Amino acid sequence: MLSVDLNSDIGEGFGAWHIGDNTDEQIMPLISSANVATGFHAGDPSTMYTTVELAGKHGVSVGAHPGYRDLLGFGRRHIHTSAHELVHDIIYQVGALREIAHAHGLTLQHVKPHGALYMHLANDQDAAGLFINHLHQLAPELMLYVMHGTRLHKLALEKCHPVICEFYADRDYDQSGSIVFTRKTGALDPEQVAKKVLRACRENQVTTVDHQEISVQFDSICIHSDTPGALKLVRVVRQTLEQAGIAIQAPNPMNIQ
Amino acid sequence: MLSVDLNSDIGEGFGAWHIGDNTDEQIMPLISSANVATGFHAGDPSTMYTTVELAGKHGVSVGAHPGYRDLLGFGRRHIHTSAHELVHDIIYQVGALREIAHAHGLTLQHVKPHGALYMHLANDQDAAGLFINHLHQLAPELMLYVMHGTRLHKLALEKCHPVICEFYADRDYDQSGSIVFTRKTGALDPEQVAKKVLRACRENQVTTVDHQEISVQFDSICIHSDTPGALKLVRVVRQTLEQAGIAIQAPNPMNIQ
Amino acid sequence: MLSVDLNSDIGEGFGAWHIGDNTDEQIMPLISSANVATGFHAGDPSTMYTTVELAGKHGVSVGAHPGYRDLLGFGRRHIHTSAHELVHDIIYQVGALREIAHAHGLTLQHVKPHGALYMHLANDQDAAGLFINHLHQLAPELMLYVMHGTRLHKLALEKCHPVICEFYADRDYDQSGSIVFTRKTGALDPEQVAKKVLRACRENQVTTVDHQEISVQFDSICIHSDTPGALKLVRVVRQTLEQAGIAIQAPNPMNIQ
Amino acid sequence: MLSVDLNSDIGEGFGAWHIGDNTDEQIMPLISSANVATGFHAGDPSTMYTTVELAGKHGVSVGAHPGYRDLLGFGRRHIHTSAHELVHDIIYQVGALREIAHAHGLTLQHVKPHGALYMHLANDQDAAGLFINHLHQLAPELMLYVMHGTRLHKLALEKCHPVICEFYADRDYDQSGSIVFTRKTGALDPEQVAKKVLRACRENQVTTVDHQEISVQFDSICIHSDTPGALKLVRVVRQTLEQAGIAIQAPNPMNIQ
Repeated sequence: MLSVDLNSDIGEGFGAWHIGDNTDEQIMPLISSANVATGFHAGDPSTMYTTVELAGKHGVSVGAHPGYRDLLGFGRRHIHTSAHELVHDIIYQVGALREIAHAHGLTLQHVKPHGALYMHLANDQDAAGLFINHLHQLAPELMLYVMHGTRLHKLALEKCHPVICEFYADRDYDQSGSIVFTRKTGALDPEQVAKKVLRACRENQVTTVDHQEISVQFDSICIHSDTPGALKLVRVVRQTLEQAGIAIQAPNPMNIQ
Repeated sequence: MLSVDLNSDIGEGFGAWHIGDNTDEQIMPLISSANVATGFHAGDPSTMYTTVELAGKHGVSVGAHPGYRDLLGFGRRHIHTSAHELVHDIIYQVGALREIAHAHGLTLQHVKPHGALYMHLANDQDAAGLFINHLHQLAPELMLYVMHGTRLHKLALEKCHPVICEFYADRDYDQSGSIVFTRKTGALDPEQVAKKVLRACRENQVTTVDHQEISVQFDSICIHSDTPGALKLVRVVRQTLEQAGIAIQAPNPMNIQ
Repeated sequence: MLSVDLNSDIGEGFGAWHIGDNTDEQIMPLISSANVATGFHAGDPSTMYTTVELAGKHGVSVGAHPGYRDLLGFGRRHIHTSAHELVHDIIYQVGALREIAHAHGLTLQHVKPHGALYMHLANDQDAAGLFINHLHQLAPELMLYVMHGTRLHKLALEKCHPVICEFYADRDYDQSGSIVFTRKTGALDPEQVAKKVLRACRENQVTTVDHQEISVQFDSICIHSDTPGALKLVRVVRQTLEQAGIAIQAPNPMNIQ
Repeated sequence: MLSVDLNSDIGEGFGAWHIGDNTDEQIMPLISSANVATGFHAGDPSTMYTTVELAGKHGVSVGAHPGYRDLLGFGRRHIHTSAHELVHDIIYQVGALREIAHAHGLTLQHVKPHGALYMHLANDQDAAGLFINHLHQLAPELMLYVMHGTRLHKLALEKCHPVICEFYADRDYDQSGSIVFTRKTGALDPEQVAKKVLRACRENQVTTVDHQEISVQFDSICIHSDTPGALKLVRVVRQTLEQAGIAIQAPNPMNIQ
């Protein structure tokens, strides 16, 4: 692996409010792809406008990060609703960000659903199917960030829709290759995380919470910007990879899928 | 005048709620341009999706109808905020509808701000200037619906941005050519309204509330769908115009500006 | 049975929006207990203020009708969240309505959760338990409207908290005594509904969708105001009961539980 | 002056979001009265619940801090609406917090409108009049925090409603006795602020931005918790006053009005 993408959720403030212990100005220069919140779980048009401008300034690729309509829950709570409604919500949010990107002379690179919507679309057959059908018809060029091996991943492959598989640097894996979801984690040790990531890049292996070795396939490393100590994590991961000769850069559409 | 545009606000429900005493299914077949609410004062992604589909079915041109972020006040209350924030809000909303239109194979024809935002942009120099600059850069083809003679109208003309001037069939005019704003009106007499509209089309004249004659210049007739008895108004106006040999059709981009 | 309570959801507009094919002014004079929407799924402070005033004018008892924080979904969508959060949301909403009732010189009679929250609290052990504990500590006098035989019903009985069991006039029952949930029903035949209700009042029996006879225990008849044709349903049910010598009146706190 | 009240806005997060560079846990032990955000401009039921609990733990008096319905603008933007609507909004918010306070065995001490609503109610004759009439009828015991000399202050005095006048430690005054509104201020020098406050307490004098001396009358010192460096300001002001023999304690209802 000569290069890898490093993505993070960005623009997750809302009006005067802030989340996490770092700022977008600190994280943005360190990543290659920004998942920009699109107003339903976080973000608002002015925050989005500023965030996209910041991404452009740092040459970071911009993706839409649509979520459930749930500001209070920050998009982390599953809402029982129809697949159609979710797809309409996503189209709306993608379009809103696409227009803001155009206002800055940029085009969208990707789409990555947020939080509970990411998890729901990953494995709900109806929602995943409807989503990928609409996405592929409407925006066949927008890369879809997914978890490897999920239904959504498989459906996207069947459609020949460009996908980017993620490795979650700040999450633990279980034997099935799923991440172990823990909302409140203490600060992680950046050196250990960086070591885990480097090994994953070089050997495609990661150690699970049960001390097993599993294989991981990915095109992008995800570090959540609201993980405590995220800024240091991103910085050390980036340095470690660069020192090992692995460049941080956004996915090349020519190489994937 | 051989033809004239007839526009109405459409898709102004929100979730399970409804406004006005008619349905979009009844109004849509009668108009030529639909101002589709874009989620901030009314409308939601699923309502927008259905509304645009309905417009497409009836060959009605689709425009974005962005409003203040104010569901409770239905976008009728002025909110003191910066011109930049308003412009970001509009870009967001236009983009959201544009994507939904694309999902139906349609392109947007126009943009018409809603309610208090329409009034604010009409005459606030800063907001109007910033808005038209962004609109013209971002979407030079999107016709802007305006009130004749306002600052926004003049700024759009200076920019050579395509504009559509409106005649408000269900509002009274004063001598300055401004509409007399009255939120709660009783049901209007459709025959009288139609007569007023026909005369405006033929003679470019309207009688003010003070019984003066003033000149009116317009390309489109606006009937608000939440005016009591709106459905009958639209129907009678359309019939009256058609019987007088004036076709109802969306503006031809080649003829304007 | 000499008298029975007749309750309906009231004040379910939001700002300029309306739901259902009737108005609160039409329904209010016909019922004895009003479940007033408290702003999270429907209703807003001004609507609540007017609704409570209307209830007072007609001598109708006022209850809080708290829902999920979900205007778009009208509180009909389940949201995965903690029992604590739900209980805080309910306390907030009850307090808001209680203050508005006081502004009209009225006291609250009851609380009845709305939609998906009603169903969730009915049978989720954690949420039901936490809710009844808080309710009983905070408002031991507020009658709780419940479905007979649910966990919430049983927990309320154990706490000796006053409960009102409901008979759902506009819903069908299955053999378990549960209502058969169908969101979109066509208009019901008011005469048949009235007959079903009268029989339930006199014989405590209802015929299920599978043509079985089951026993029903209740203190109040519920007719949903957004059921198509609700106004006529309420009117005919009330007339039928009154002609049979059963008065419509709010529950007497002395008689219950 | 043997004692003075020290009030601050508290509980101004929303869901997962945070505002300001300090936490409520840090500020709460240092103040005597907490203005708790009530959900319209900031705060949510769970945040309110936790905040009131924290206040109770530290023996801090609890007041309602209602704002405009404007999460995005944090209640800092004026919204043109009717006085009736504002009063209904305030009643709703006060009731919600009152119920939450009861759940903790506490009673509300005061009400202090937030941001743009504070400014609007201070000097709009209609809104101030309607507000004080309703407040006095509904909650004659709830102290009203006001700016000295405003219409609202005078109307409250006429009604014999208990008022608490504020001294704004982190704002500058002009000659009229009004505060000079500047949204974005750099960090203030805590020692200078404390000196200004101590002099105001002892001599009832403050130096204006134009280097004039004016007289100030007040019962409570207000330090905004979102002022940069607020925690240090509060700490130094408190220490300075205590060292000068002035105790920080909530107003005694017996001494006021």
